[in-house]
Amino acid sequence: MPSISHRGTVMPASPIRRLVPFAEQAKNKGIKVFHLNIGQPDIKTPQVALEAMHSLDLNVIEYGHSAGRESYIKKLSAYYKTKGININTDQLMITTGGSEAISLAFLSCLDVGDEVIVPEPFYANYYGFASSTGVKVVPLSSDIDTSFALPSFSEIEKLITDRTRAIFICNPNNPTGYLYSREELEQLKDIVKRHDLYLLSDEVYSEFCYDGAQHISIMELEGLEDHTVMIDSVSKRYSECGLRIGMLLSRNPRIIETALKFAQARLCPPTLGQIAAEASLETPEEYFRETNVEYNKRRNFLIERLNRIPGVFSPMPKGAFYTVARLPVDDADKFCQWVLSDFSYNNQTVMMAPASGFYITPGKGTKEVRIAYVLNIDDLAAAIDILERALEAYPNRCLD
Amino acid sequence: MPSISHRGTVMPASPIRRLVPFAEQAKNKGIKVFHLNIGQPDIKTPQVALEAMHSLDLNVIEYGHSAGRESYIKKLSAYYKTKGININTDQLMITTGGSEAISLAFLSCLDVGDEVIVPEPFYANYYGFASSTGVKVVPLSSDIDTSFALPSFSEIEKLITDRTRAIFICNPNNPTGYLYSREELEQLKDIVKRHDLYLLSDEVYSEFCYDGAQHISIMELEGLEDHTVMIDSVSKRYSECGLRIGMLLSRNPRIIETALKFAQARLCPPTLGQIAAEASLETPEEYFRETNVEYNKRRNFLIERLNRIPGVFSPMPKGAFYTVARLPVDDADKFCQWVLSDFSYNNQTVMMAPASGFYITPGKGTKEVRIAYVLNIDDLAAAIDILERALEAYPNRCLD
Ligand SMILES: Cc1ncc(COP(=O)(O)O)c(C=O)c1O
Ligand SMILES: Cc1ncc(COP(=O)(O)O)c(C=O)c1O
Repeated sequence: MPSISHRGTVMPASPIRRLVPFAEQAKNKGIKVFHLNIGQPDIKTPQVALEAMHSLDLNVIEYGHSAGRESYIKKLSAYYKTKGININTDQLMITTGGSEAISLAFLSCLDVGDEVIVPEPFYANYYGFASSTGVKVVPLSSDIDTSFALPSFSEIEKLITDRTRAIFICNPNNPTGYLYSREELEQLKDIVKRHDLYLLSDEVYSEFCYDGAQHISIMELEGLEDHTVMIDSVSKRYSECGLRIGMLLSRNPRIIETALKFAQARLCPPTLGQIAAEASLETPEEYFRETNVEYNKRRNFLIERLNRIPGVFSPMPKGAFYTVARLPVDDADKFCQWVLSDFSYNNQTVMMAPASGFYITPGKGTKEVRIAYVLNIDDLAAAIDILERALEAYPNRCLD
Repeated sequence: MPSISHRGTVMPASPIRRLVPFAEQAKNKGIKVFHLNIGQPDIKTPQVALEAMHSLDLNVIEYGHSAGRESYIKKLSAYYKTKGININTDQLMITTGGSEAISLAFLSCLDVGDEVIVPEPFYANYYGFASSTGVKVVPLSSDIDTSFALPSFSEIEKLITDRTRAIFICNPNNPTGYLYSREELEQLKDIVKRHDLYLLSDEVYSEFCYDGAQHISIMELEGLEDHTVMIDSVSKRYSECGLRIGMLLSRNPRIIETALKFAQARLCPPTLGQIAAEASLETPEEYFRETNVEYNKRRNFLIERLNRIPGVFSPMPKGAFYTVARLPVDDADKFCQWVLSDFSYNNQTVMMAPASGFYITPGKGTKEVRIAYVLNIDDLAAAIDILERALEAYPNRCLD
């Protein structure tokens, strides 16, 4: 039997996968599982998107342009202008989800063996895209005790080698909810200019900022036009995860031209998704206001409740819909499994994502979990009650 | 300014791109251009697929399973059984077009620098997928004078090195329309078994076989279960190119498991496309019969007409909807451009794909073009008339 590729053998399965059978078992025992582990919003997709499908007026669902539908690109260029991002139609392309935009950015900016510096903890799938494009992820530690702020200029510079080609941030951050300040972005700007690097920024959660905090896109940084590549997506903005529509933005014409060459091979992004996403640009403002109010409420509730549990600590996330919390346990992986396999309260339990899956530095995040607040307040309240009781009952609790 | 990746710099743009501005210019001069260059069928998408969108009943367009929607996978497993391919639900996964299935097969079977042997001429985008996954394409020459039949056992074996991991065929073939015989497939089976290689087969045109010729899938080859990976797609079968739905099939459980790890990073294939594709399984048999009759008619007409033009030669393709024809010209690239830029007949002209874009061996295919018969008979007739006149008028005609 021929062997699997080495890259396929060493590629880790999605970290949450390991827990899935335990969640299934719990469900089979009749236990209700609250999912705090996922990034799938429970918010409705805008009606305009669904209506675009109901009134779909096509006879042949043809291949489209590799860069995306012209009408959509035009409207997106206008959309970004309303967000303070001045971008022309030839400076943006439509991708198959933000996911593909990340792969295309890697392929265009980095060669096999080149290094990209990524603040850790980070969205676990970055590692998958790095693996399939042969890029090496170099983690830049950020810490729960400093609320996951960016380390100092000199800490970042220490990681730069002759193979470093890019720094890649996620803003607002998944899994931490961290929102980068203008000072931090200016600092990154100085570093990438000094070392002639690319600055990649995944801004798929830009819609989700709280307490009136302002999201600052890297596309707003002046004098960095040739260095910046932004990744965006309709998945979270409109709760359209299944459409698989994202965007790649850059004012460096060689980036778009190069990404497009790779994109031509896969022909085009999904036509139906693009039609629905294009229609979504007409979503009424109140949809976002209501969504924001809802997430803000959940976030305030969640963080307050978490920090009231003895031994639990969560910083206050300023964006996205996740937080990373430290738990008073020996090992969060074991605890998350135990909660599913050995614990229930009123016939209910919770599923959380062990944060170790978001770190690649061995031993980091072992007492942390990522909690998503994609449940309504009542379910969230019930889930936190369960977490509190589980921590009380867990045999390997470590309160220091 | 940071430089583009080396792989991005050397990646060729889609070969047909070079001609696009010339086609635009012709259109701007009021000249009608018949497109013999594209792989976009003009056949209607089945009504059931469009209706599935009109009656779409979702409130949230969520992420789905990375391997595809369960209901669709189940029905596909049953569908393949009706085609003589016995495949379980865990031996197939849904991908974002056949395109993604090819990338996933490369990632799972080959490492960076490993070699895949591909009969030449081949679908140009294979080179793009090889480039983005770091795989080296080793061309196996097939020749227009032998109707693009597979070379002998020993010719193939000569290409095998210690980096060879797979042989990759396209059956029926794009660009040649070649359909592999059982003998050829058995020969490939012997080679991959002897050298412990993978046999990858792109069968996205399996629906399109003429003169009652039988398409034989590599999944029907006995004793090759661990070696075979099949790529499929709804793009051509149902004229649903824009859905971006394909499939990866293998009975080697490690292939599916590994491909799935890479697929998890990109989350899921398009939800709307999957719903439309699932509905398409209910397409009435007569849709395929009618399509087949139509393509058969076009093929017979096209090949007959081509071979009547002095100096032109086209083998009779047995499948797909393309043929590669040799023209009596100095250089087909130049000729294809000239037809667009300097020629018209009754204010009409034709766009063809120079075959050199389907070869990587330098100097091969320079007098050949790929012609797609995705136009109705009347347009096809007009297009061939134009080609004939263009050949008469071309200053660098070479009749030997
Ligand atoms: C930080 C981050 N980037 C990118 C993605 C991928 O999103 P898409 O659905 O656009 O591929 C996700 C999805 O969860 C994410 O959390
Ligand atoms: C031989 C071959 N394989 C694969 C593809 C890709 O098809 P899909 O639309 O399924 O990605 C094509 C498209 O033209 C093709 O001709």
